[in-house]
Amino acid sequence: MKHPEDTIGNLIDSQNVSFISSVDEEGFPNTKAMLAPCKREGITTFYWHTNGPSTKVKQYRHNPKACVYFYDKRFFRAVMLKGTMEIVDDTRVKQALWQDEYAKYYTGGADGGDYTLLKFTAETGRYYCNFHSTDFKTHAI
Amino acid sequence: MKHPEDTIGNLIDSQNVSFISSVDEEGFPNTKAMLAPCKREGITTFYWHTNGPSTKVKQYRHNPKACVYFYDKRFFRAVMLKGTMEIVDDTRVKQALWQDEYAKYYTGGADGGDYTLLKFTAETGRYYCNFHSTDFKTHAI
Repeated sequence: MKHPEDTIGNLIDSQNVSFISSVDEEGFPNTKAMLAPCKREGITTFYWHTNGPSTKVKQYRHNPKACVYFYDKRFFRAVMLKGTMEIVDDTRVKQALWQDEYAKYYTGGADGGDYTLLKFTAETGRYYCNFHSTDFKTHAI
Repeated sequence: MKHPEDTIGNLIDSQNVSFISSVDEEGFPNTKAMLAPCKREGITTFYWHTNGPSTKVKQYRHNPKACVYFYDKRFFRAVMLKGTMEIVDDTRVKQALWQDEYAKYYTGGADGGDYTLLKFTAETGRYYCNFHSTDFKTHAI
């Protein structure tokens, strides 16, 4: 894989859905479709806006181990990133990433309790393409 | 939700991709896109054919806790089923579900070591539709 950050970054940017997974209190994996990340920094850091009272927020507070998965149906390729998910409680970060269009999802706006950010930090990844997979470390590529 | 087995069964049958998740030895969730199940019995039992030597087979032998996720992009609805994943070692079951078209994926055919079946048994589920979710038990509906 040449230029993996570009290859994987482009795959991610071309998808309007992301799949995020957690481990619940009984040890079962839980997966959920989300919109595309509202911000990404390379292929290491990703943010999603979500509802504060949701099940996955509670799960990540209890156990931050996570994976995120982006699937390119057109070219049958995908990437899974493993790492940790944090709940962003810092109001400055939340305000910085707030967009007016989010008002339709969250009561109380940028400072209300419903609007929450998830921040994912990747440690390792696996890229799938043409029925082959390649493992990589996100900070090493 | 009226007739949940029909509603959820139809959602599942209309998708040509499924997302299956495991928990790896370090406790991280792992998610992977698969083709549609090659067989389903209601919304409780599902089979996928896969490669015996794959990472997920190894993970499920170590820890059978699993979830499967079906996402209907067109209507923005989805279902997550939680339960356990078994590796089917019974050659009679494997032969019964073998299709000639699988020969392109697996060397050795129905009796070769590469062709393996995953069998998922659901215990509970969560259905997502119109930004609401409904929990259910698969045997109770």
